[in-house]
Amino acid sequence: MNDTIRLLKNHRSIRKFKDVPVTGEQLSHILDAAQMASTSSNMQAYSVIGVTDPDKKALLAEYSRNEFVRDSAIFLVWCADLSRIQLACEMRGGNVNVPGTVEHLLVATVDTALAAQNAAIAAESMGLGIVYIGGIRNSPREVSDLLKLPRLMYPVFGMCVGVPDHQPGIKPRQPRAAVYHENEYSDEGVAEALAEYDETMRRYYLERTGGKRDATWTQEMEAKMRQPGRLHMRQFLHDRGFTLE
Amino acid sequence: MNDTIRLLKNHRSIRKFKDVPVTGEQLSHILDAAQMASTSSNMQAYSVIGVTDPDKKALLAEYSRNEFVRDSAIFLVWCADLSRIQLACEMRGGNVNVPGTVEHLLVATVDTALAAQNAAIAAESMGLGIVYIGGIRNSPREVSDLLKLPRLMYPVFGMCVGVPDHQPGIKPRQPRAAVYHENEYSDEGVAEALAEYDETMRRYYLERTGGKRDATWTQEMEAKMRQPGRLHMRQFLHDRGFTLE
Repeated sequence: MNDTIRLLKNHRSIRKFKDVPVTGEQLSHILDAAQMASTSSNMQAYSVIGVTDPDKKALLAEYSRNEFVRDSAIFLVWCADLSRIQLACEMRGGNVNVPGTVEHLLVATVDTALAAQNAAIAAESMGLGIVYIGGIRNSPREVSDLLKLPRLMYPVFGMCVGVPDHQPGIKPRQPRAAVYHENEYSDEGVAEALAEYDETMRRYYLERTGGKRDATWTQEMEAKMRQPGRLHMRQFLHDRGFTLE
Repeated sequence: MNDTIRLLKNHRSIRKFKDVPVTGEQLSHILDAAQMASTSSNMQAYSVIGVTDPDKKALLAEYSRNEFVRDSAIFLVWCADLSRIQLACEMRGGNVNVPGTVEHLLVATVDTALAAQNAAIAAESMGLGIVYIGGIRNSPREVSDLLKLPRLMYPVFGMCVGVPDHQPGIKPRQPRAAVYHENEYSDEGVAEALAEYDETMRRYYLERTGGKRDATWTQEMEAKMRQPGRLHMRQFLHDRGFTLE
């Protein structure tokens, strides 16, 4: 096993950071790596806002309901961005408008995620820690206003980056049989794999919380699905030009 | 610069493969790395179908309009998957249905992309080459039928994996000023950065095609936006349970 694979398998989300900045050189490597990720038809349909301003970080912590966002050295807000392609059309002097189709939403969201994951790995390879913050979608309008995001751009997730101040355990993942299928999908073995995972997660939570948290994965998922969140996303995206036709 | 960052910065898409299989050990590393990527609220809302069957690869090449899919050692189809969470709800004996909201579409699509990018990096770290194939969304119904994908699962993109049989140049990316912003978005300098990139891409294409292809990025984007593709995605997703409320 090589060092890169070892690094990938060693990921854990970091939520406590030392009061140490990310250097300009580190940030430059992180962004270079992000930009070299694959991109659909070279659309490069994403932008990154790097937030170091303490007041802005405090507001983003509040909007995303994650107090520790304040303590990240830099909070990267990863945005799906079709506005640059709209600008390209305008630079061509034409009258072409970028359609906010479902397909374009997917392309821009995937481009954003691929770039972000490269950034995460680059950061981790330098001993920095990261955690993704989907919580910024709790308040996407407030985040967009704060960061002055234009039309055709939406904040997909944030990412805290900084020097780790704890070393949490690696969270177990589902057995391979739940996730991977050869040549075609089959539900054979999936329920058994999830039952096995339920026991793994129960042990993991009990151990991690000194016996306080007694929960399984299926239980957590059912509870989550009972109260689906962020139902504002459709209208929010529509208002930003992602009309989803 | 460490080896992992060097690897990330050295990415190029591989579209010619040697007739050499990906070993079981290599695939295992690739999938382990994929599974360790971050996942929203531990939903792990993705599945992977690994296609090695030559007939299936030939059909997927046709569906995605990418002949070289045939020649990949293994073609990984990365699927956003809420069906496993639906199964979890059923295993709890309740009557909860997973809602196919826009938010859930985003969560599942992002989970899929993060896992896939880890897989791509793991593969490249072992000297394998990859290319993402968004083209499977040209024929998402045919792909879903061929791979027997259940409801609440959709194929986001494919990925050819194999031993490289060419070494293409690295495709230039946009200048940092187009992509990265400090503390808030500003359009200052973006048009200039795109004009600079247009010249870079013109030179790149001319050189690569021996003077045949004379095109810029803004030109390509305008042409693409004039004829938006894959307008079937909305209805397709709806029919698979992604109702996008």
